Amino acid sequence: VKAAGLDLGGTNVKVCLLDYGEAPRVVERRSAETHAERGPEAVMDVLAGLAADAIAAAGAVQAVGLGAPGPLDLERGRSLWMPNLPGWNNVPIVAEMEARLGRRVALINDSRALTLAELELGAGRGCRDLVCFALGTGVGGGVVVNGQLLLGLNGTAGELGHQTIDPEGRRCGCGNRGCLEQEASGPAIARAGGRATAEAVLEAARSGDERALAAFERAGAKLGIAIANAVLTVGPDRVVVGGGVAAAGELLLRPAREELVRRDRVQPVERVEVVAATLGSYAGAIGAALWAASRIRT
Amino acid sequence: VKAAGLDLGGTNVKVCLLDYGEAPRVVERRSAETHAERGPEAVMDVLAGLAADAIAAAGAVQAVGLGAPGPLDLERGRSLWMPNLPGWNNVPIVAEMEARLGRRVALINDSRALTLAELELGAGRGCRDLVCFALGTGVGGGVVVNGQLLLGLNGTAGELGHQTIDPEGRRCGCGNRGCLEQEASGPAIARAGGRATAEAVLEAARSGDERALAAFERAGAKLGIAIANAVLTVGPDRVVVGGGVAAAGELLLRPAREELVRRDRVQPVERVEVVAATLGSYAGAIGAALWAASRIRT
Repeated sequence: VKAAGLDLGGTNVKVCLLDYGEAPRVVERRSAETHAERGPEAVMDVLAGLAADAIAAAGAVQAVGLGAPGPLDLERGRSLWMPNLPGWNNVPIVAEMEARLGRRVALINDSRALTLAELELGAGRGCRDLVCFALGTGVGGGVVVNGQLLLGLNGTAGELGHQTIDPEGRRCGCGNRGCLEQEASGPAIARAGGRATAEAVLEAARSGDERALAAFERAGAKLGIAIANAVLTVGPDRVVVGGGVAAAGELLLRPAREELVRRDRVQPVERVEVVAATLGSYAGAIGAALWAASRIRT
Repeated sequence: VKAAGLDLGGTNVKVCLLDYGEAPRVVERRSAETHAERGPEAVMDVLAGLAADAIAAAGAVQAVGLGAPGPLDLERGRSLWMPNLPGWNNVPIVAEMEARLGRRVALINDSRALTLAELELGAGRGCRDLVCFALGTGVGGGVVVNGQLLLGLNGTAGELGHQTIDPEGRRCGCGNRGCLEQEASGPAIARAGGRATAEAVLEAARSGDERALAAFERAGAKLGIAIANAVLTVGPDRVVVGGGVAAAGELLLRPAREELVRRDRVQPVERVEVVAATLGSYAGAIGAALWAASRIRT
């Protein structure tokens, strides 16, 4: 019994096939360049083509899920806008993809998809309550309560990247000031580390570059404030940090843990594990497949 | 079928009896001065005496709940410390009250009790997901997900008063800096308004005193930041603001709503109602009774 998971990213689109029985496992992974500059129609053609090929090769696929970034209107199956993909204002993404694939598509925010994947197959396994941060070009998140992904207000629960962690901080793309995203996203770390990308800052940090090390120290501490606020609200067993930036591992997580303990003095935070995600760059696609599978089963 | 709810407050102890059938209703309310300076043993004697009288008068009471402030160890039935009551470090409050009353006592944090009461009988009725703030001498809170009170890490989910809303802000009693409690508690409003109590500031504000009005404007805006962060995390239908400070009503809630809209640009926050609690000063006792009743039923 298989589900397909599609992940619409600013740089790459990805598809995975998930065999979900007692123990779900990923049986296929494919990716292609997004070419976001070509606009939504062309991007959806690429993603649908990739998915259709994988599905055809797999035989029976029961459910298809799509993870997409940015504010979504889950009720109407639309993207409202996408921070890193031009032209996606108010696109009826579910109807468009269903027309291309000839089957039902279950939509979910990409960070919530990552959360679901880490919960069921990754670093969040066995957790009852879980908070997940996804640090990439933007910063997203997800919350799990009683073993269930929390959707909230039209699927927007877990928008942890837009928590205010400094009321007078940098202006964010969303319109607010001092969002976590302005301190702990890839571009924020690149800026603080004085390099073109967060990957380059990470490489420099591993060679002992002081400015690069300080950039992760600072981003980790800011992340720690956001973790503390989320932990105070939800009281989870574990906090999972995923997305490309999480490749920095302890360079980011150690200062985050230290800040959590410094900030949150009213909970037994020593019990809350703060760990890196384990599923890597296909986490969003895997989560989208799990989401689609759960929609069918319920 | 009745449950008794006990509320241990710094100024008053309260007891209510709740007749819980299809539609629970409060059938009795009693209160007495806490005399916190006399220490835990004396305070528990007063509270147990008040409860025993009410229970004896009521006839059959099936469940007894106790709401208490401060960090609690719910698993072991202990208070860890209480911010506004001296001498309550590591008191086995459940065992002590059970010995005095000769019956089982279900312990819950007082702000979580208020949340439960507002959910079932007050301003949160009909909500699936709810966030509640309790603004008094301290600031507490509670979170409801899928119609259920969220407990989290040993019952500490919902500690919204200790969210960091300004990383370089005032030192808090908990050891952190910039907690919401330092901006929106009764003492914080008294300080900002230049009066002895928040009640006096409220009176002055109603007479048009500019400093008093500014104190509520500021506290409301800070509350709005904390509301935004909690709404981003949980995505609730409604936010309920209770506790003594909520008597300020729109003086506090209007700036809070304005700040929520200014801060949270990635969710349909226009759908999130921010309203005052409706149950008044017995909300904690009512919630403790509901909590005890729910423990028996499950």
